[in-house]
Amino acid sequence: MQKEIAGGVCAPKGFKANGIHCGIRKNKDKKDLALILSEAVCNVACVYTTNLVKGAPILVTQQHVADGHARAVIVNSGNANTCNADGVEIAEKMCALVEQYAGVPAEDVVIASTGVIGQPLPLEPIERGMGALVAGLGANSDAAAEAIMTTDTVKKQAAVSFALGGKECRMGVICKGVGMICPNMATMLMFLTTDAAISSEMLQKAISADVQDSLNMLSVDRDTSTNDTLCIMANGLAGNAPVTEDGEDFAAFCEALHALTSAMCRKLAADGEGATKLIECRVQGARSRQDARLAAKAVINSNLVKAAMFGADANWGRVLCALGYSGAALDPDKVEVCFCSAAGAVKVCENGRGVPFSEETAKAVLSEKEIVIDVLLHDGDFGATGWGCDLTYDYVKINGDYRT
Amino acid sequence: MQKEIAGGVCAPKGFKANGIHCGIRKNKDKKDLALILSEAVCNVACVYTTNLVKGAPILVTQQHVADGHARAVIVNSGNANTCNADGVEIAEKMCALVEQYAGVPAEDVVIASTGVIGQPLPLEPIERGMGALVAGLGANSDAAAEAIMTTDTVKKQAAVSFALGGKECRMGVICKGVGMICPNMATMLMFLTTDAAISSEMLQKAISADVQDSLNMLSVDRDTSTNDTLCIMANGLAGNAPVTEDGEDFAAFCEALHALTSAMCRKLAADGEGATKLIECRVQGARSRQDARLAAKAVINSNLVKAAMFGADANWGRVLCALGYSGAALDPDKVEVCFCSAAGAVKVCENGRGVPFSEETAKAVLSEKEIVIDVLLHDGDFGATGWGCDLTYDYVKINGDYRT
Repeated sequence: MQKEIAGGVCAPKGFKANGIHCGIRKNKDKKDLALILSEAVCNVACVYTTNLVKGAPILVTQQHVADGHARAVIVNSGNANTCNADGVEIAEKMCALVEQYAGVPAEDVVIASTGVIGQPLPLEPIERGMGALVAGLGANSDAAAEAIMTTDTVKKQAAVSFALGGKECRMGVICKGVGMICPNMATMLMFLTTDAAISSEMLQKAISADVQDSLNMLSVDRDTSTNDTLCIMANGLAGNAPVTEDGEDFAAFCEALHALTSAMCRKLAADGEGATKLIECRVQGARSRQDARLAAKAVINSNLVKAAMFGADANWGRVLCALGYSGAALDPDKVEVCFCSAAGAVKVCENGRGVPFSEETAKAVLSEKEIVIDVLLHDGDFGATGWGCDLTYDYVKINGDYRT
Repeated sequence: MQKEIAGGVCAPKGFKANGIHCGIRKNKDKKDLALILSEAVCNVACVYTTNLVKGAPILVTQQHVADGHARAVIVNSGNANTCNADGVEIAEKMCALVEQYAGVPAEDVVIASTGVIGQPLPLEPIERGMGALVAGLGANSDAAAEAIMTTDTVKKQAAVSFALGGKECRMGVICKGVGMICPNMATMLMFLTTDAAISSEMLQKAISADVQDSLNMLSVDRDTSTNDTLCIMANGLAGNAPVTEDGEDFAAFCEALHALTSAMCRKLAADGEGATKLIECRVQGARSRQDARLAAKAVINSNLVKAAMFGADANWGRVLCALGYSGAALDPDKVEVCFCSAAGAVKVCENGRGVPFSEETAKAVLSEKEIVIDVLLHDGDFGATGWGCDLTYDYVKINGDYRT
């Protein structure tokens, strides 16, 4: 079992971080450049967006991690460096700046960018900021978490400690959302650090499996971004016997990983653009894991369900409707639906039909900040959980005029 | 070539219609019950929602049209008669009322319902209203079009005349949207009448093909409803040589059909819940028809694109992003995008990269009521058009508290 600890990405031994305002964003109060650095070379694994239109930083990162190693991550916010003629060139120059200022070979640098698509990213502010960025490296996960935010309203970071073969290991994370968040990865950036010793192959196996039930079950608006990147770096400084195959240690590692990624999913969903509520859809009794995932995703993706949750309206017919078009194999006549929150629980549908319920209780349940939509399909033994948020006036406002 | 004529579903010979307020809806100013009736038995064909959760009226209609014949359509708004224990029973009783009051055998009645899911539909108001509904049958396409509206703000009807083998034929339509509108049919109800003589097999072939490029290319919110129904009835009173196979006459029939269905798609999209703008995405240069459809649909479905259009923000990166995750085979480096409207046209992207453009011109173009997003993939010879609308505060407002 893992336990929560402080320190974010700097909680594991040997990792430093920092974040500053360098001038990519006009508002001087908004940090826009982050660096994470390990004192030792790390094994590394990444997962990227499935979008055919990929940000230049992803193309560069893919080359840099091809050998399974990395030592630093540089990230800017305010500009996605995507659909630009000079995108790859700029991304490579950013990595070269990390080599110049921090001594990490450019080919060991992971790079990511988030922000507006299709506007050239100027190198000058980054170059000007590198001295201060590197000079301030320390236990500054806070600053790094802040510097990768775009329309995020809260910093997202966490860390846990866990044991591998009797040795205490640590894992930390920072991430950002919050628009273009969708199944199959989104401009979601997530950076995990760990001092556990684990091969890059097992790291890749761990995160590729994990995203199926974490990030790929998260949706703010179904728009799969061009720049999504999840990266995990393991420097081995905890001194455990290296994890190189399946077994108890790998399982413990994956459990710690999922504790962080699922916690981040909840934070990302709750901070979805304009969101006032976290919506968690827990599907049980599905014929297969994939059916459960499809069903949960359809519910949290439905604009109509999302708008109903915003209005605290127990309009469960929209949940049934979403299940029906989800693509999941299910028997509509067996479906049971309950709305739950800190204020209680109310069953609204059984055997695919409405059951009498108190509108007053339902209103109270749905007026909380975290809502669970429990869906029982009574058709098998598989389950899945999806995370989303309500659809609000502010989502429209934020996205109606994002660039200005 | 067809030409526009007046009269809606009553334009073809032998069709009467009416619409009244019977009391399913509380507001007495809102009509809620419609009837369309042909003096002669019709060949009939239907297309329904693909949602696994299907409204009871669909189950009953499927039985009634299994023999290829029908004479009347009864429709109520205000209640979808879906997910109710007695749904099929109530739907059958509604058809029996048509037999009792209008003399059309119940098994020749097509039935549809639209409104809230999961609330029992009371038969009493319908029974009370039948006398007046039937007594008022006449050239009242207007009243019928009004009675099937839910959150629609405008009536949707049209008619055309066209020639088959030298005989003048007519086709009319009424339809309604406007939420739960999505690819693969939506609570979209559309009823077409024609006095052309055409077999039910060819009718089915015509509408099944047509929806691929009409209704299935329409999306307001990606929520595929439980009650979508498209029904066409042909009574043959125009006296043309019956259309029973492919050929010139069938092509002319399909052309008239598509003129009406595509006109309705534009009206449905423009009247999308909360919409202030019609968004038409025209994709050209795709490798296949299906790639073109996927690309066009992804653009009109993107919440981020929709919100940008609401804000008249030329954020073309979101168009590229949607194309990238659309599932369409395309080369991102060849994509060209232009925004067009009555105020002009502005090219914003070429070869997958931004091109300089006047923000002022773009704002003017995007401030119109009808926006075209022209996407040129430069990768093949296929095209498709999708229709959608912007995402607005009012969409959230309407759907945040629909039931009250």
